[in-house]
Amino acid sequence: MQLLDGKKTSQAILDRLKIDVAQRLASGKKIPHLAAILVGSNGASQTYVNSKVKACNEIGFVSTLIEYEEEVSEMKLLDKIQELNEDMSVDGILVQLPLPKHISERKVIEAISVSKDVDGFHPENLGKMVLSEPEGFVSATPYGIMLLLEFNHISTKGKHAVVLGRSHIVGRPMSILLSNNSTPGNCTVTVCHSKTENLKEICQQADIIIAAIGQPEFLKADMVKEGAVVIDVGITRVKDSSKKSGYKLVGDVDFENVAPKCSFITPVPGGVGPMTIAALMKNTFKACAENE
Amino acid sequence: MQLLDGKKTSQAILDRLKIDVAQRLASGKKIPHLAAILVGSNGASQTYVNSKVKACNEIGFVSTLIEYEEEVSEMKLLDKIQELNEDMSVDGILVQLPLPKHISERKVIEAISVSKDVDGFHPENLGKMVLSEPEGFVSATPYGIMLLLEFNHISTKGKHAVVLGRSHIVGRPMSILLSNNSTPGNCTVTVCHSKTENLKEICQQADIIIAAIGQPEFLKADMVKEGAVVIDVGITRVKDSSKKSGYKLVGDVDFENVAPKCSFITPVPGGVGPMTIAALMKNTFKACAENE
Repeated sequence: MQLLDGKKTSQAILDRLKIDVAQRLASGKKIPHLAAILVGSNGASQTYVNSKVKACNEIGFVSTLIEYEEEVSEMKLLDKIQELNEDMSVDGILVQLPLPKHISERKVIEAISVSKDVDGFHPENLGKMVLSEPEGFVSATPYGIMLLLEFNHISTKGKHAVVLGRSHIVGRPMSILLSNNSTPGNCTVTVCHSKTENLKEICQQADIIIAAIGQPEFLKADMVKEGAVVIDVGITRVKDSSKKSGYKLVGDVDFENVAPKCSFITPVPGGVGPMTIAALMKNTFKACAENE
Repeated sequence: MQLLDGKKTSQAILDRLKIDVAQRLASGKKIPHLAAILVGSNGASQTYVNSKVKACNEIGFVSTLIEYEEEVSEMKLLDKIQELNEDMSVDGILVQLPLPKHISERKVIEAISVSKDVDGFHPENLGKMVLSEPEGFVSATPYGIMLLLEFNHISTKGKHAVVLGRSHIVGRPMSILLSNNSTPGNCTVTVCHSKTENLKEICQQADIIIAAIGQPEFLKADMVKEGAVVIDVGITRVKDSSKKSGYKLVGDVDFENVAPKCSFITPVPGGVGPMTIAALMKNTFKACAENE
């Protein structure tokens, strides 16, 4: 069993981007600029946005963090997005989700210019992913997983991948990307969800399992074939009195019992999580290169 | 075994639309208007466009057929699309594919206003389908298949659907629609393609098979489970000296041997084909209702 080390892979990608940025600087080209919008004071959201800004700083991107109080009006947010769309110095725009209930996430996402939508949530970018159009943006988590597979030379062609979950953010895009005629890709893909019957039997056939349902330790050892590749997208806080913090982070996979059967498996934390940052930075770099 | 009669189902939908149009007319509302563009003199394309115009006439839609010679410039076509986008009297625009090689199909498709793209080929409409956003347009063949399943009360929830083919026009959208949390939908879906291993074993598990690979009589009886639902999207001309025309139309399914094992199966012709017309008309009606 080999750990798919997302931290290490992400760092390798960030190091490469750092060199690419330096090269752009040396040749007088524009430096990528990410604008992030954070609404309210949700702790997890703050942590996520901070880690994105930190990654920008580390590799030499320009970043702008725009913070609003929970009560900000939808109109004010949309106006800011319009301003950022028109601002030639900004290459990528992200709005940290979730947003307060009085604001339509859909309206906000669709207000972001398709060419600056580095989170890849705009329907047009989703459609471009379906069409494998190279200038679209693939959202950070699925793109990060594809990068993790690629950098660790996981063979996917002709393999049977089972995706647990059909969320717009992870499950659905993963099923599309893995079945595309690409490398990584070219898998036979089965999408499973809450209505799936015989889930165990289906998982047992999988060469690759993507677990993205948000149910702690859902995937058990008897559902996994010997030698499978397991990618764990889940991350849930569960109480753990043995920890100083009083909790631990748990994925969708019963890691302790599943890991020994796997050829490759991602840990939680330190697997998919760090890859999303690397993917977002790659998208921002791409936006900058494409907009010039 | 029961035939899924696309001709009959399509006619029922068209009859219903005819009443809806008459009701709109009676209440002084706008009548749906489809503008179709045909480039060149490809026989099949002419036949397809003519059947769409004929359906419009039958149910009381306004239709405009714009024909160009094979040599028309891309610019001229794009200008016409712009004109139709701005023309308030036009609700739906379709450009019959394929286009001559000197014209970029992608540019042409992306030039059509998302709200008039009744063929559902624009990436934003594809993305809206992935997101199950109700105001998007699902392209005619997959939408037609979903209507066929719905009108014939085929149970799909929790069923295992196997989609053969990952084309942008049929296989990919079908895999998304069938796995959506909707009715029909909620299937466990496996997408198979040219790189799939153990195809026979995968097909044998299927409760529903969508064959969309364009290989005549590819799906054989030993690949199909007793009681399966089989939807045949393929349509290929093969030589047949016993026919007056010298050819016959054949689907992707070895109908003669597969049909006896099925609970439901579509014939070719008269299965999926007529449904695409009904779906296109429904999309045009919807465009008209949404644009008012």
